[in-house]
Amino acid sequence: MPKRVDHRERRTLIADALMRVAAEQGLEAVSLRHVATAAGVSAGMVQHYFSTKDEMMAFAIDVVRERGQARVAEAMAALGADPSPRSQLRTMLAALLPLDEPAGNDGRVALAFLAYTAVRPEAGAGLRADTAELIRFIAGLLPTPDEDAAAGLLTLTEGVALYLLAGNLTKDRALRLLDTHMDLLYGTTSPTRP
Amino acid sequence: MPKRVDHRERRTLIADALMRVAAEQGLEAVSLRHVATAAGVSAGMVQHYFSTKDEMMAFAIDVVRERGQARVAEAMAALGADPSPRSQLRTMLAALLPLDEPAGNDGRVALAFLAYTAVRPEAGAGLRADTAELIRFIAGLLPTPDEDAAAGLLTLTEGVALYLLAGNLTKDRALRLLDTHMDLLYGTTSPTRP
Repeated sequence: MPKRVDHRERRTLIADALMRVAAEQGLEAVSLRHVATAAGVSAGMVQHYFSTKDEMMAFAIDVVRERGQARVAEAMAALGADPSPRSQLRTMLAALLPLDEPAGNDGRVALAFLAYTAVRPEAGAGLRADTAELIRFIAGLLPTPDEDAAAGLLTLTEGVALYLLAGNLTKDRALRLLDTHMDLLYGTTSPTRP
Repeated sequence: MPKRVDHRERRTLIADALMRVAAEQGLEAVSLRHVATAAGVSAGMVQHYFSTKDEMMAFAIDVVRERGQARVAEAMAALGADPSPRSQLRTMLAALLPLDEPAGNDGRVALAFLAYTAVRPEAGAGLRADTAELIRFIAGLLPTPDEDAAAGLLTLTEGVALYLLAGNLTKDRALRLLDTHMDLLYGTTSPTRP
C-alpha cells in the first residue's frame, strides 16, 4: 500500500521554508523556486500549496499576525492577578517590539509586507482592521479613552519597532522611549521645559 | 558626424524609470528588465549604468533622501524671518510626512528600502547616520536638548508616516497626532488624566 501523503505536514514544511527565506533574505526573495530549494522539495509541490506569490505573502503575514498575538497573550498571562491598566498596556506594547530573535524575524517579514501593501492597498485591509481594533483597545486602557492619545502611543511604538529593525536603537533605549512617552501620557514626569 | 551620447541625460532617463517602477510596483519589482521596459531602452543599456540590483537600490534611496532634504529645506525657507524653534520643528517634521503624491511615492520607496536593509544591515549605514544626526538636530530645537525626547518625537513621526502609507490615518489626523505629542512635550496641554 503506498504511503498516504500528509498534506498538513507538507504544508507546514513549505510554510516554514517560506518564512525562513522571508526572514533571512527579505520577502522580495520569496519565490516558488527559492522556497522549494529551502524546503528541499520541487517547485511544482510548492505551487500545489501556494499558487501565486500573493498567496505566499498573505500566508506569511497571517503567520506573523498570529505569532504576534500569541506573544502578546503570553506576556499578558504572565502579569499575574489584577494588573493595573498601565502595566497591561506597557506589557502589550513591549510585546509588539522586535526585542528578540523570533520577534525580529517576524518584524522583518511584517516590514516587507507593509512595503508590499503600500503599493497594493487592497492587500492591507486585514492589517488596517487590526490596527483600528488595537487603537480602540489601547484607548480603553488609558486614564481617559482618548483615541488620538492611543494612536499617538501606537505610532510611537511602531516607529520604535521600525528603528529597532533598522538598527537605530538599542533594546534598552527602545523601552526607555516607550516608558518616557507613557510617563508623559500619565503625567508622571514634567515635560522637557527648562 | 555621429550624435554624441549624453550620458547624464540617459542616466536620468533610466533613473526616472527606476523610481517610477519602484513607486508604482514596489522595490521588489525593480529589475534590469522592468526598468528597461519602463525607460524604453534595452536591458543592456540599463546594466551599463546600474550593474546590480543593489546599485539600483542604493541609487533609489539616495534620490529619496535628497528629495526629502529638499522638501524640508523648502518648507523651512517658507517660514519667514525668525521662526520659533517649535515652529521650525513642527515644519520640519510635517515635511517628513508623506502628505502629498510625490512625498507618498518617495515614502513607499523608503519603506521598501528599509525592509531591504532590515535583512542587509550593511546597506543601511547611511540611513542610520542620517537618523542619528536628525535626532541631535531635533534635540537642539526642544526646550531642553534631551536626545530621548527628540528620539521619541522622531519615532512617533516615523510611525505616523508608516500609518499614512498603510492607509491607517487621514492627513488631518496624522498632523493632529504630531501636534498632540508636541503639546505634551512642551507642556501646553494636560495629560490624559481623568
